Amino acid sequence: MASGNLQIRRFFNLDTRAYERGALPAKTKELLGLVASMVLRCDDCVTYHIVRCLEEGVTDSEFFDAFNVALVVGGSITIPHLRRAVERLDQCRQMKRKRASRNSR
Amino acid sequence: MASGNLQIRRFFNLDTRAYERGALPAKTKELLGLVASMVLRCDDCVTYHIVRCLEEGVTDSEFFDAFNVALVVGGSITIPHLRRAVERLDQCRQMKRKRASRNSR
Amino acid sequence: MASGNLQIRRFFNLDTRAYERGALPAKTKELLGLVASMVLRCDDCVTYHIVRCLEEGVTDSEFFDAFNVALVVGGSITIPHLRRAVERLDQCRQMKRKRASRNSR
Amino acid sequence: MASGNLQIRRFFNLDTRAYERGALPAKTKELLGLVASMVLRCDDCVTYHIVRCLEEGVTDSEFFDAFNVALVVGGSITIPHLRRAVERLDQCRQMKRKRASRNSR
Amino acid sequence: MASGNLQIRRFFNLDTRAYERGALPAKTKELLGLVASMVLRCDDCVTYHIVRCLEEGVTDSEFFDAFNVALVVGGSITIPHLRRAVERLDQCRQMKRKRASRNSR
Amino acid sequence: MASGNLQIRRFFNLDTRAYERGALPAKTKELLGLVASMVLRCDDCVTYHIVRCLEEGVTDSEFFDAFNVALVVGGSITIPHLRRAVERLDQCRQMKRKRASRNSR
Repeated sequence: MASGNLQIRRFFNLDTRAYERGALPAKTKELLGLVASMVLRCDDCVTYHIVRCLEEGVTDSEFFDAFNVALVVGGSITIPHLRRAVERLDQCRQMKRKRASRNSR
Repeated sequence: MASGNLQIRRFFNLDTRAYERGALPAKTKELLGLVASMVLRCDDCVTYHIVRCLEEGVTDSEFFDAFNVALVVGGSITIPHLRRAVERLDQCRQMKRKRASRNSR
Repeated sequence: MASGNLQIRRFFNLDTRAYERGALPAKTKELLGLVASMVLRCDDCVTYHIVRCLEEGVTDSEFFDAFNVALVVGGSITIPHLRRAVERLDQCRQMKRKRASRNSR
Repeated sequence: MASGNLQIRRFFNLDTRAYERGALPAKTKELLGLVASMVLRCDDCVTYHIVRCLEEGVTDSEFFDAFNVALVVGGSITIPHLRRAVERLDQCRQMKRKRASRNSR
Repeated sequence: MASGNLQIRRFFNLDTRAYERGALPAKTKELLGLVASMVLRCDDCVTYHIVRCLEEGVTDSEFFDAFNVALVVGGSITIPHLRRAVERLDQCRQMKRKRASRNSR
Repeated sequence: MASGNLQIRRFFNLDTRAYERGALPAKTKELLGLVASMVLRCDDCVTYHIVRCLEEGVTDSEFFDAFNVALVVGGSITIPHLRRAVERLDQCRQMKRKRASRNSR
């Protein structure tokens, strides 16, 4: 195993732990990850943090508050990423509703 | 007054309002602004949000949790900004202690 | 309606007005938006400004002057975006010619 | 002379020529360079293009139109650079006035 | 031919020459291009330099050393690009093996 | 000790190890760090890697080859950082010569 490869796995481990509950709750940390990903304009990272934020119970109003901070900090260049983030959030909400309605039958 | 100038003032107004309490508390929003500023590597913006975070009662452990998210997302290129952020946080804490000890006399 | 959402709409409004004719003509402002989008490497934003530049009568020579400024400022990392910009410009020109030939029949 | 060094001089040459009058006038090109420098947040580059824009006769209203495009595209993270740009613009205007009043005596 | 266009071709020429053997061997220069492309997060540029690095005989262990530097410098925001880089490297290796087995028949 | 703080130290450890000799020699890795720092435009990081490159025996011609790759990839926006890098390289060379002449007495 290449040494580079081993260190990459260590980085992935640090990445996972950065979002675990510490002094700040996991929900806040995921929102930090979401906004950082939006201002750095990485769609894959944004999707990942949207899914994790939903698991932590982030509401739509809270999402839009976070999106707004990202938009103001990062400017209009983030708008295409904002649009895709809203689409993905909608898809996640729909999947959740479908699953809930299936389970309630 | 140039139209550009008027619109710049409107942007500044949007910037101020983005951090006001909404669905998310002001403290969380300031932490979002802090991490966004660190990954985009703007020392002046980081300083501004450190001061505001302190006003919102962010503890040292919470600051380091947020710094760690910024460091993992943004990589080692953020380290010089992280060092300066920690220095500024120390200065703010010292100023606060001095003021408190002066007031207690 | 979430407050974040309202503020996002206000940002979109500021974004629209930034490109309206002021002290600088709309054509110059769209070229500014085009070059800013290229150096920040956002294909969706580049496409938007190419369409608007065409509406403002930007010629091919003017486009390539602007592309060249973006390339020199932003470096070779912008080349894939430059290639896609030239493709989109070609597509827009072709669509325009087709529409013109259809209307002239 | 290192080959790297020769190529760096060739790049500097391309950089100079990118702003010479072509299909677009030098004034427009300098405004493109100014906005690109602001959204990429390089104070030295912004200063350079402010000086060149002044030589090309850019008015204050035109500057603020360009600043506003940069602010909207690049977001609040550009604000410290915007503030320094306005300060530098003021300094350049004052130097020009002093020189003019000295010459008129 | 637009002057902008001519200058773009000159830039492309400088781009090609930057990776030719000089004081540093072509292999090192391609690795520099690879890491620069990863921290600036341009998939097309990463693919290009992976292909060129393979031609220069870069081994898998060397690739992962370079990927690790890019990951540490650029942070977790580069992870989606790292994943795609590893996929592309695998594809290139497979194509090479197929071609080799075909030729050995 | 805050958990964030512990993880930051772990990141610093990964950062140090990324440049240790592995499949690639330390010299090549430091050049990778130098070019990554230049295209991401961090003067402090550039200085650090210049010092380390000098320790690894990088020659002036090799430095300029690396600077040229950074300039072509990152564009004219890196020029102020390139200038400061050359100044720092000169200062390091002078300090080394002074020390050598002192030791030879």
